[in-house]
Amino acid sequence: MLAISEFDLIKDYFNKSGLIPTTEQSARIPLGIGDDCAVIDLPPERLLAVSMDTLVADVHFPAKADSGLIAQRALAVNLSDLAAMGAEPLAFTLALSLPKVEEAWLQGFSLGLEQMIQKYRCPLIGGDITKGPLSITIQVHGLLERGKILRRDSARPGELVYVSGELGAAGLAVSLLGNGMSLDKPDTKELHSAYYQPVPRVILGQSIAGIASAAIDISDGLMADLGHIAEQSGVGIVLNAKAIPISKAVKNFMGAMGDKSKGLNLALTAGDEYELALTVAEDQQEELQQKAAEINVPLTLIGRVVKGSRVKCLDSDGREIDIKNSGYRHFS
Amino acid sequence: MLAISEFDLIKDYFNKSGLIPTTEQSARIPLGIGDDCAVIDLPPERLLAVSMDTLVADVHFPAKADSGLIAQRALAVNLSDLAAMGAEPLAFTLALSLPKVEEAWLQGFSLGLEQMIQKYRCPLIGGDITKGPLSITIQVHGLLERGKILRRDSARPGELVYVSGELGAAGLAVSLLGNGMSLDKPDTKELHSAYYQPVPRVILGQSIAGIASAAIDISDGLMADLGHIAEQSGVGIVLNAKAIPISKAVKNFMGAMGDKSKGLNLALTAGDEYELALTVAEDQQEELQQKAAEINVPLTLIGRVVKGSRVKCLDSDGREIDIKNSGYRHFS
Repeated sequence: MLAISEFDLIKDYFNKSGLIPTTEQSARIPLGIGDDCAVIDLPPERLLAVSMDTLVADVHFPAKADSGLIAQRALAVNLSDLAAMGAEPLAFTLALSLPKVEEAWLQGFSLGLEQMIQKYRCPLIGGDITKGPLSITIQVHGLLERGKILRRDSARPGELVYVSGELGAAGLAVSLLGNGMSLDKPDTKELHSAYYQPVPRVILGQSIAGIASAAIDISDGLMADLGHIAEQSGVGIVLNAKAIPISKAVKNFMGAMGDKSKGLNLALTAGDEYELALTVAEDQQEELQQKAAEINVPLTLIGRVVKGSRVKCLDSDGREIDIKNSGYRHFS
Repeated sequence: MLAISEFDLIKDYFNKSGLIPTTEQSARIPLGIGDDCAVIDLPPERLLAVSMDTLVADVHFPAKADSGLIAQRALAVNLSDLAAMGAEPLAFTLALSLPKVEEAWLQGFSLGLEQMIQKYRCPLIGGDITKGPLSITIQVHGLLERGKILRRDSARPGELVYVSGELGAAGLAVSLLGNGMSLDKPDTKELHSAYYQPVPRVILGQSIAGIASAAIDISDGLMADLGHIAEQSGVGIVLNAKAIPISKAVKNFMGAMGDKSKGLNLALTAGDEYELALTVAEDQQEELQQKAAEINVPLTLIGRVVKGSRVKCLDSDGREIDIKNSGYRHFS
């Protein structure tokens, strides 16, 4: 059998036009794949945001899933972290562990990456391919404007809490996959894309940088991630249960299962959502809504920042709702 | 059983003094662990070098090895890539996959990292901890001076070829480990450190940036990595077998095994070495040697860049030596 080296794999599947920096991008990336390091030339007035996420087969995605979808999901969850800082995507690196070399798998994976790279203008600049259990680690790099960084530690009492999009579909998908169900039926199409092709809120993040006071992507679940803002900002947060935007697919499915709250718990606690939760001062509210409308991203007012330290969700009678779990726990 | 979240692990083992940026370093790292992204503030006259390497258990290290040594090796092999570009270490990110949470393992790992961080002044600024087969991906970030970048594609015919240190010890260690032998005996001490605690040539790289014409770290083996310089520079390279610096431990061991060339093949082809190979114009030779002497790093003249495309090693009669393999092949 022919031995295939890492260098051949890189040349055949990753160091090719469509994945690597364009001529225009190469001013910022003077050196990409092929040397000991890649080189980034940062514009002097900008800061660099970096974030790294790993997706392990059968932990973060089914090992048998389509490799193009795995690639898209892997890049999307990382781009979501750039979005949550208000950063503009610049480039990414990829560490890929593969049990063996399968041409069709690699073709699909590289095509999935290419679609994301073209869409988000975020080329591949380097990484590593190793033999090992299937696992994908990506580090994204983005550009930040000084003074316009969406941090977690800057929410203040009296501010309003917003969330983008509708919640619960990815969480429901995870739950169905976990029970051995397929997502390939027509009526689970929305769940399938919510899980495999989450849309990172990259444009929203950049639009609200300098307007929102704090932001986070809710990949660990809305309550858990608002908990991070609360903890790091030293505040409490009160949510209005009625206002939580629950995905229609989730309402339908949970309704059919006899869930009276029709997915509220799922929307509050399920991980794998890549919407942004953010806080904003009242006098910035109008500008925030205008920006969101301009880029056509739904943004819902769901609560308020208060003095205190906890995140609570209240029903229409002002009673605290008992939450069944508090987000994804990584080593439970 | 108590569920331990990723956040607890980060707080207990990784987001603590000794690992994260010092007050002095925080000017360049305005935001480290704890938000969606870390933030790097690059000095305007510098470029950023980035490199990413993965170490998979039982592929790149024995799964049962001491976790402090695993940590040291993981960071060293990445720092070596910065060295090979002439970059000054700035900070690193870490993606750690763990099958389960073991306190003693994590204590050792975090201590191993701390020792490297202190020595190379390269703090931890972020990353990811996931449940999965044991695997460590690190991305290092370093600072480059414009015009002083050690690339692979800039060697020219007529230049001289040098290598730092002595070769073969890590390769022999890999070979013994692969045959189920232990490296914990007194007479394998040198092999043990060559494998687990390779010394990245960080100071050498920075010293010769602007003097050497091309450089590479020889983690895939001397011949294979010089092959990358040859290919990317469009040149040939001729090595002098007699001049190759072979480690004493390797000479002794191979001599005892009846190897007449006493480890030459190992020194030419074994991977896992983290010395630097470099090319230099003749009129820069003196300055190069002076720099190496100043920082007390042995540097040996081993060959010459020629017109052509191949890397050859010649014996004292000028005959080409037949090489048994050409370095580590990642998917053989």
